[in-house]
Amino acid sequence: MTETASRPTLEAVAARAGVSRATASRVVNGGDGVREPLVERVRRAVEELGYVPNQAARSLVTRRHDAVAVVIAEPETRVFADPFFALQLRGISKELTTHDSQLVLLLTEGRDDHVRVGRYLAGGHVDGALVFSLHLDDPLPGLIHGAGVPTVFGGRPGWGDGARNSVPTVYVDCDNRGGAREAVRHLVGLGRTCIAHITGALDQTSAVDRLDGFRDVMVDGDPALVAEGDFTPAGGERAMRELLERRPDVDAVFAANDLSASGALRVLRERGRRVPDDVAVIGFDDMLPIAEQTDPPLTSVRQDIEEMGRLMARLLLRRLDRRSGDASLGGDPSSVVLPTTLVRRVSA
Amino acid sequence: MTETASRPTLEAVAARAGVSRATASRVVNGGDGVREPLVERVRRAVEELGYVPNQAARSLVTRRHDAVAVVIAEPETRVFADPFFALQLRGISKELTTHDSQLVLLLTEGRDDHVRVGRYLAGGHVDGALVFSLHLDDPLPGLIHGAGVPTVFGGRPGWGDGARNSVPTVYVDCDNRGGAREAVRHLVGLGRTCIAHITGALDQTSAVDRLDGFRDVMVDGDPALVAEGDFTPAGGERAMRELLERRPDVDAVFAANDLSASGALRVLRERGRRVPDDVAVIGFDDMLPIAEQTDPPLTSVRQDIEEMGRLMARLLLRRLDRRSGDASLGGDPSSVVLPTTLVRRVSA
Repeated sequence: MTETASRPTLEAVAARAGVSRATASRVVNGGDGVREPLVERVRRAVEELGYVPNQAARSLVTRRHDAVAVVIAEPETRVFADPFFALQLRGISKELTTHDSQLVLLLTEGRDDHVRVGRYLAGGHVDGALVFSLHLDDPLPGLIHGAGVPTVFGGRPGWGDGARNSVPTVYVDCDNRGGAREAVRHLVGLGRTCIAHITGALDQTSAVDRLDGFRDVMVDGDPALVAEGDFTPAGGERAMRELLERRPDVDAVFAANDLSASGALRVLRERGRRVPDDVAVIGFDDMLPIAEQTDPPLTSVRQDIEEMGRLMARLLLRRLDRRSGDASLGGDPSSVVLPTTLVRRVSA
Repeated sequence: MTETASRPTLEAVAARAGVSRATASRVVNGGDGVREPLVERVRRAVEELGYVPNQAARSLVTRRHDAVAVVIAEPETRVFADPFFALQLRGISKELTTHDSQLVLLLTEGRDDHVRVGRYLAGGHVDGALVFSLHLDDPLPGLIHGAGVPTVFGGRPGWGDGARNSVPTVYVDCDNRGGAREAVRHLVGLGRTCIAHITGALDQTSAVDRLDGFRDVMVDGDPALVAEGDFTPAGGERAMRELLERRPDVDAVFAANDLSASGALRVLRERGRRVPDDVAVIGFDDMLPIAEQTDPPLTSVRQDIEEMGRLMARLLLRRLDRRSGDASLGGDPSSVVLPTTLVRRVSA
């Protein structure tokens, strides 16, 4: 990315030596496991082309570590239980690999450990950070600010632009509010009259925005039709039970994500309510295979989670390149909000 | 761990200030988000007790980063698809958190990226490394050796003790061969006469050891009764189809792990073979909830995966403390092989 055209690349070395890029890289970086004749050919190609290994050349000029931290503000157990994070990491990993930057995932047992994460970020081990699943009143943003590492957030953080920082906050998000509105309008269009909402964790902006979208359409709705969930299947079950108790006449549910919708579907089946005949259900995320494997298959608001991860990484790398003085890149990148689409299956 | 009794701990500071350990830690480490009166109380307690923050005191003496890298020698997509890794990480994470050491998970897209991992390890960002799921001919061990970071391996590496290194290789493993023997003996005890084995990925020692255990019991077995799998459900399906084709009279299968056993069960059901009546099936790992949710529930060789993770972390931390000159810890830790137990459910 910061290479100029005239500097020989590792690809050129590999081509000249007649070996794969991986083999050339292994030799250049001092790894073993390459047969001696190949090592010799790569060394000769390096000399002939005057190749300077990327890392060394770069860090001389830019003091870069070629590593990016990813911080998910959830305990390790949730990170592995919710496929949302795996998808976002997949996008990030692909993008960073393309730029030969190491993905460094900082895992924690919970919020109490975020101080230690801040310390690691401040320790000069990474070039920047990608942070997602922030909750309000998490100490992490303050710690990151203190650590002084360039950061891109996944999901709009819960503070106003520029309020916390002289550098504007850069984030990647989807149109949570617009997507929620579309889902609820669809339920109205189906002729449903008693439409409920199962929220996400309300200390996260994505949950608040989806609730706002619900309220945009159901302007004078009964407050008893909103039940608090937490983005997990168990939370969806609990909320659905509450809703059935408070309003047995409920005929539609918009759940803040697919995992909580799957919990709601389980409870409806258990109570003998047919979906969509008696109760129509819509989720959010369009997470595969979950949305296809629920009974019945789930209508859901699609956001491209993997693409969001890729974009986060791309914006951060651009920010880093700008800091290294590559002026050709134009202004500082700004936040991106991706559109959503309603994917219809059977449940609504 | 390296603290002497006379030095005041963060716990003592927290107790004196009347705040939680987390709050005391936040203040001491310069994070924000703590109310001013509490900050003042913690500061006073620090002064009165003469508390020296762990990190600063330690790194002066030991040059430690209080961070440990975890490298799983699999592409990121497999790391998130196989619950084995989540369990092992859970054990590691718990242990490291107890010692206020940051878990740094280095993700890759595949083996070609291992050179970059080696570079990061050599870059002085972590105190040591925990490495698992090694495959033969992976460049990683050589790179790690070159990086000079203390390492503990999960699973016995594929080279002899001391062959590669003057420092002995330290690993944590379970008794793969003994566990396999017990499973196959159980099938023999059930009166089965045509017992097959679905192997794991044979470039991993765990798969080779389980195959050896199978052969220990089935000394003169038909080679057609061994089908190669790769520890995935899809690999288990493929291998089961091969076995049914080669030996339609097969009446028992020992699969190298629960995921491949689940694939084998699917194929048997599809072909109308009843389990365990027609074909008895045993897995390995006793991974929950998988082993309980298969149809029928799976008999499996149990290994305590989370405990293996915890032990890996503990051995590494001990090794690091010894390097820092704490002689009270005795000799260098040696490898640990944990016993397995056969857990009987319905499938055999």
